[in-house]
This record gives sequence, C-alpha cells and structure tokens, in this order.
Amino acid sequence: MPLPPHSSSRRDFMKRFAVGAGAVAAMKAPAVLARVGERVPPRQKLGIALVGLGYYSTQILGPALQHTQDVELRGIVTGTPAKAERWKAQYGIPEANIYNYETFDRIADNEAIDIIYVVLPNSMHAEYTIRAAEAGKHVICEKPMALNAEECRQMIQACRDAGVQLTIGYRMQFEPHTQEVMRLGQEQVFGPVRMVQAGAGYREGRADHWKLKKAMGGGAMMDMGVYSLQAARYITGEEPIAVTAQAHTTRPELFTEVDETTMFQLEFPSGALATLYTSFGMGVNDMYTTAADGWFYLRPFSSYSGIQGASSNGPFDFPQINQQAVQMDEQARSIRDGTPMRVPGEEGLRDMIVVDAIYQAIESGERVEIG
Amino acid sequence: MPLPPHSSSRRDFMKRFAVGAGAVAAMKAPAVLARVGERVPPRQKLGIALVGLGYYSTQILGPALQHTQDVELRGIVTGTPAKAERWKAQYGIPEANIYNYETFDRIADNEAIDIIYVVLPNSMHAEYTIRAAEAGKHVICEKPMALNAEECRQMIQACRDAGVQLTIGYRMQFEPHTQEVMRLGQEQVFGPVRMVQAGAGYREGRADHWKLKKAMGGGAMMDMGVYSLQAARYITGEEPIAVTAQAHTTRPELFTEVDETTMFQLEFPSGALATLYTSFGMGVNDMYTTAADGWFYLRPFSSYSGIQGASSNGPFDFPQINQQAVQMDEQARSIRDGTPMRVPGEEGLRDMIVVDAIYQAIESGERVEIG
Repeated sequence: MPLPPHSSSRRDFMKRFAVGAGAVAAMKAPAVLARVGERVPPRQKLGIALVGLGYYSTQILGPALQHTQDVELRGIVTGTPAKAERWKAQYGIPEANIYNYETFDRIADNEAIDIIYVVLPNSMHAEYTIRAAEAGKHVICEKPMALNAEECRQMIQACRDAGVQLTIGYRMQFEPHTQEVMRLGQEQVFGPVRMVQAGAGYREGRADHWKLKKAMGGGAMMDMGVYSLQAARYITGEEPIAVTAQAHTTRPELFTEVDETTMFQLEFPSGALATLYTSFGMGVNDMYTTAADGWFYLRPFSSYSGIQGASSNGPFDFPQINQQAVQMDEQARSIRDGTPMRVPGEEGLRDMIVVDAIYQAIESGERVEIG
Repeated sequence: MPLPPHSSSRRDFMKRFAVGAGAVAAMKAPAVLARVGERVPPRQKLGIALVGLGYYSTQILGPALQHTQDVELRGIVTGTPAKAERWKAQYGIPEANIYNYETFDRIADNEAIDIIYVVLPNSMHAEYTIRAAEAGKHVICEKPMALNAEECRQMIQACRDAGVQLTIGYRMQFEPHTQEVMRLGQEQVFGPVRMVQAGAGYREGRADHWKLKKAMGGGAMMDMGVYSLQAARYITGEEPIAVTAQAHTTRPELFTEVDETTMFQLEFPSGALATLYTSFGMGVNDMYTTAADGWFYLRPFSSYSGIQGASSNGPFDFPQINQQAVQMDEQARSIRDGTPMRVPGEEGLRDMIVVDAIYQAIESGERVEIG
C-alpha cells in the first residue's frame, strides 16, 4: 500500500494544515478558546453580520462565533423585531448594528461590519449577496450558492465589480477528515479514483417549510444533494463532463413542487464515476470511494460534528473541530490578508453548473453533457 | 430501536436457520466435518457431477465438496483429457463417471449421478441445463442463470417437463450475515427500506477470457452485477418496477464488446430505491442499506468468505461458513426430500428479467419499466 501506516495521524494533520495546538484544543473544547487566545498577541478581529436568523444562524453560527479568533459577531439583519431583541440581549449587539430588510443597504455606512454572511432561503442568496457587495462588504453566502449557475455568475461579477471577496459557506473543506479524503483522492494516494458513492439526506416533514417550495430554491438536490456532489468533486479534484439523474417522491402530498429523493450519476474526464443520491425522505450520511489500489470512506461525512472514517490502511485519527468557527476564522483571515479563499464563489458556481445539468437530466430523462 | 441488542447473536442464527452445532463447527473448521458426521447416523449422500472444470470448479467447488454431508463429488464433464486425469487422481472419480461434451448425454444412464452442476461459461448454461434435465438429472446452474430471461424460461420449462429440480448457484442466500440483512430488510426491522446501495466488482484484465466476450455472456453486469442486483432484491423482498442504467468503459481496447462498469438504479413498488453498480475495472464489494429507522451494511458482501457487517444496533456476530458446501448440501437435501429450493430457477429468471431491462436502458438511454 502506498500510504505509510501513520500518515493519517493527528500530528500529520496539524503539520499539513498548519493548525496550531491551541486551535485544535479550542476545536475540541471551544470554551477554552478565549483563554488560549489571551496568551498570544491579540489579532484584529473582523466584524460579521448575519443576514437571516433562522435555525442555522441561531443554533449554529451564533454559537460558533463565540469561538472564533479572527472574526466576531457584530451585526444582524432580520425582519423579526423579537429576534433582534433576543440577539441583542444574548450577544450584546449594539442597536446601530441591527438592520431589517428595508434598512439593510445602510450597512454600507457601518464600519464595524466587514463581512456579511447571507443565511437566507436559497432564492434570496443572489439578491443579498449582490446588495452586500454593493454596500462594499465582503460576503459569505450559504450553500447552495443560488438558484442556478446564471445567478452565481451575477454574484461573482457583482463582488468583482465592488472589489470585495466572495466565499461560500461550505464547511467540509475545513474539516480534517474531509481534507484527508480530498488528499487521498486528489493526490491519488491509492491510485486514481474509480468511483465515489455518497448519500446525504434527512427526513423532512415540515409541509410549510421553504425547503419544500420550488420558488424558494427548495428540494433535496438543492439542500443536501450539494454535499454528495461536492464529495465527488473534491475527492476526484475534477469537474464532471456528463450527468444522468432520476428524481422520485414517495410522499406526493408533501412534495408537490420539489424532489424528495434524487439519484444522480457523474462522469469525470479521467474515467472516474460517481453514483450519488440525496433525500428529504431518509436519514443518510455516507461516502465511500473506490480507488485503483484501495478505498476510503467517511460515515458520517457531512454532519456538523462527529465525522469519522477509514481507508484501506486503517481508521483515521483526526480531531473533531467546530467546523463553522474554523470556516469563518479562515475566511476572515483570507479577507484580512487578501489571500485566496479556500472556497471562492467560483466553487459554488461549479456546483450549480452541475445542479443545473442534473435538473435538465431529470426533466429530459436523458444524459446531459456539461461544458 | 426495534431490534433487541442480542438478536444478532450466533445462537439466534442457529435457531432461526436450523443450523446444527455440528454444521457450524464444520463451517468454521471444515476438516473436522467428517469426524462430526461419524457421530450421527449416516445419511444417504447424493452424487453430483460438475460440468466445466474452470477456476470455480477447480479452486472452489471441488474442495467444497470434500466438506459436504448430503452430496458428494462423483462425476465430471470436461473437454480436456488432462483435467479429467487430474480430477480422477485427486478425487478418486471412477472412469465410468467421467464424461466429455460428446458423451455428456449418456450420463442419463448413470445412477451414481443425481445432480448436475453447470459451471460453464454463461452462454452454455441454457443448453447444458436443458440437456441435463433431459438426462433426468436435477440441476444446479451457476449464476447468472443464462443470457436472458427467455433462456431462463426455457430452462425452467425443460426441468418441469423432466420432473427434475432446478436451482441456481447463488451462495449469498445461504450465508448467515446475508440472511440477517435479508431479515432486517424484508421484516422491516428498521422500518421500510428506503435505499440499497451496492457495488460489486474486481479488476479484470484477461483480454482472452470469455468474460470479455459478448456472445459468451460476458460483461461486468452479467458476472458481478448480479450480486448488486440480488442485494437490492433480497433486502427489499420486492421486484423492481423500473430501471435506469449507464455503461462506461475506461479501457476501450480491452472492453470492445462488453461493459467494464455499469451503474444501475432500481425503483421498487414500495417506493424503495436502489443505486447499484458493478465493474470489471475496480475492486469493490460493498452494500449499505438505509431504512426508515436505521441502517445496515455488509463489507465485503459478496466474497467467498469473510463477510462482515453491522446495523445501527451494532456489529453482526455470525459464523463464517463454507458457503459453497452449505449451499450444495441444502440444495441436495431439497432434492432428496422434495422440498422447495431456497433459490429455484424462478429466482434466476427474476434477476435476468431485470438484467434484460438494464441492457435495454443502457441501449436506449431511457428509463425502462418492467412487467
């Protein structure tokens, strides 16, 4: 086997990804982070404003921003006054940094806010990313980037025109186990990748949720399918050249507009293939890759925490991190230092090009070539 | 979770599948089998003749027949005199029980032979099954049963007309871990099955092998694809109602006639789906099932030995068996006792109906409905 037995060790991870011991400790026990930070010279934190205070902002990003070192929560944008009050009280956000959707554009004048994180329903990603750019703010846009590739191109252009950075809220690229399977695949540690299998889904039953509405950018493929798609792309390091896809629904009364389960198959230039699926009808969280001389998997592979896996050389041993804290910290550093984003807008665009082709393949029932 | 913690125990397995302690001991240590047998009243063994002495007969079935209790190797059919000599010497097969393809039909007069096991290239399964039936012998036919469903129907009819039993050389249905996933799926222990993923393949590089020749019944789908297909069928306990499929080849110089890798997707009446593949281009041996309230997998799932797996309730703990010995013993008992076969010809037919649809889906690029 080409991989030495201990290459998947925690030490190698820290070395390869230049993660400091303090950060790793913080990732494992976030509460300790601030104290670790005191022992190093304070760095200038960037200020972030969250746009849209739904589940992901409330339960995940808000708490994660209590453990970031390079960015801090300074503002919010919400249409619900009660939410504004709660966040103001909980996080001590100044009144001056609280906006609603009417006052949003005035954020241009607020020097405390460097970054706007768009956490709105998918159909609003393009509009608010473009308005944020026009306000002169750097943008983190949640995944999927937008409703389609054309919107993504407009968002990229708007940020380019405004001279601001644009990055996507992809977490997995910052996660150590995921970085390891990216390395194993892209560096062909077990030879060329032959097949990526992945399934990502959960049971969605909320009839009134925007994720079931087509106009809002709903559907399993948009929401969870991007994880399976990303896995195939980041493991092969290639862009698919053709796709077939099949959409199915077992609850037609609930899924009147969008897909409940989509299976999709990708062909890559190297000859690698991917057989992927995503679902709002079942809980699944599984990636398995077959390479010429070995295999590797992650299970779960797209959860907020608890990512585990192994290769044909043995189990992985990497730390668990606060994915969102690490993601936002690195994105803030890229903005502060003017260095390239790990997941720039172009990365979101690449996914949406494939998603467009998947919808076309579902619609036509035929194989769709890309590019 | 609906499954009690210890239901996957060895004791339960033995109870459920009526496997005696002696047989399990024999499975684990085949050499001990004869001695275990001495302590129980001797049973009448049926005589079997292997037709076709390629790898599977030579390396697998011949040795396995040294550990069977209800059937014994008594004859061979081969076109190669040197092979006949070797088998005669190694297994003490009487000259009278050695046939070639010209003398084959005379086996009708040989009372020592009860069962003919057809281990020839796929394109010869139908002819030799029918000739065996016409000779009044019971038939075990290797998988895949034949080139297509129409041949399967002719084989079933021929055996019915001759009043002999017909069974397929499927192993997995006799394997304890596999029987457990059949139970978990079919009895909906974790609720309804939502998705079966499976991949079965190895790297085939023998340019002159019949498995690369279309007329001989070659191709990954025919050879290894049946394992993935079977998994979806025996886990759901349903027959697929529609299929999509895609064939790919990375070595066109080698795969001039048949598929190197085929991905195929099945729809079942319950709404369960399967995303499956098979390959002569990569080693893969993996099944993962998502049910409403849990999951289970086998890895490897189709090997001759070493099957392992787990469910969302924990790892399986079942004995390893000599799959072929257990298979042939049970098939011989069904013949001797006139009881239904676990995998009758109709089971092979059901697979070939789907395989026909898969080839049609590959050819047309369209979804093909079945039945």
